[in-house]
Amino acid sequence: MGKKPPAIDFWFDFASPYGYFMSERIDALAARHGRQVRWRPLLLFAVLRAHGLPPPFEHPLKRDYGHLDFERSARFLEIPYAMPAGFPHISPHAARAFYLLRQADPAAARDFARAVMRGYFRAGAAIADAGCIAALAHEAAPLACGSEAEFALRIDGAEARALLAAAIEEAVQARIFGSPTVLIDGEAFFGVDRLPQIEARLAGRLAAPGSRP
Amino acid sequence: MGKKPPAIDFWFDFASPYGYFMSERIDALAARHGRQVRWRPLLLFAVLRAHGLPPPFEHPLKRDYGHLDFERSARFLEIPYAMPAGFPHISPHAARAFYLLRQADPAAARDFARAVMRGYFRAGAAIADAGCIAALAHEAAPLACGSEAEFALRIDGAEARALLAAAIEEAVQARIFGSPTVLIDGEAFFGVDRLPQIEARLAGRLAAPGSRP
Repeated sequence: MGKKPPAIDFWFDFASPYGYFMSERIDALAARHGRQVRWRPLLLFAVLRAHGLPPPFEHPLKRDYGHLDFERSARFLEIPYAMPAGFPHISPHAARAFYLLRQADPAAARDFARAVMRGYFRAGAAIADAGCIAALAHEAAPLACGSEAEFALRIDGAEARALLAAAIEEAVQARIFGSPTVLIDGEAFFGVDRLPQIEARLAGRLAAPGSRP
Repeated sequence: MGKKPPAIDFWFDFASPYGYFMSERIDALAARHGRQVRWRPLLLFAVLRAHGLPPPFEHPLKRDYGHLDFERSARFLEIPYAMPAGFPHISPHAARAFYLLRQADPAAARDFARAVMRGYFRAGAAIADAGCIAALAHEAAPLACGSEAEFALRIDGAEARALLAAAIEEAVQARIFGSPTVLIDGEAFFGVDRLPQIEARLAGRLAAPGSRP
């Protein structure tokens, strides 16, 4: 038996539509090629600020095009989607909750992450609210979460803050600048529109940069 | 016989790798769906400046990722490509020459544009140089160009400058903010990675935004 190939890193922001679309595709795609995926939420605004970059949809032209393209890309990918009122929300609570849950059970953390993004991008769930996040954690990952009230307190605690800060620092060091970014053996693929290239790369039809054909 | 469907607008910058990739695909794709394409070069830096937006690959992280992704996307699309030394070059001469040629012969102008991008992105042609552009025009479109020496002078003249200024103003009014942007019946598709959505849209498999399914 050969060695298991290394996991793929999937960096995303909970409030990123393209990150949500990627979250609906990347696990099955990786599994078809014998790869596992490590989900790594970040706070995009914090990562961009560390790099000295502006938020992605700040300019009215890019915001208007983004709204058009989110909706069109969802239809193209056949993923349910409705622009949440008040978009975009910053969601440190969701990201902190994820890293707390992951310590107990990585699979449960992923179930929770999926529930957060589906809640937000299908039903407008209030993901900026710690209580909403604790309720979603309790529903999606009851064993890893424990009591909902206690978990709501832990989301605001020093441990959760330190876990998220470490993940953000790692994302900055890894030169991530957008959501989603998929890292395959250190090679970055930015954007859900890189799905066909990711598939070709995993299937061995697209060589890594700098490698000989 | 029905009315001919309106042409598709293809906005691009001569020094844009993704614009070059699109230029190698859009005509054949449109033709398969009974559509013609109107090529519309612009100067991206001028359009972005008018919108108050920074150049796209200014930040080192985005520049490094861009270089990786240009090369990878070329391999994925199976388009010959070599990063030109000194990239990116600003090429008002090429864009002005295009609009001069188009007045005489739109097909010849497109042949010229193709020659410029292939020259630049395959062989590092000096597209920022008026003499190089006049030579390319004379070779690709001899009848529309006339004498190479006279055409080199016309590229720097008031007529050519006014034609390009009008095109840039039109791009700004059309809210273009990137190269390539394809406009189908007023709907914008930004980036060569939108080729699959453009194809689905032209084939009637992807409804226009706001339309009923």
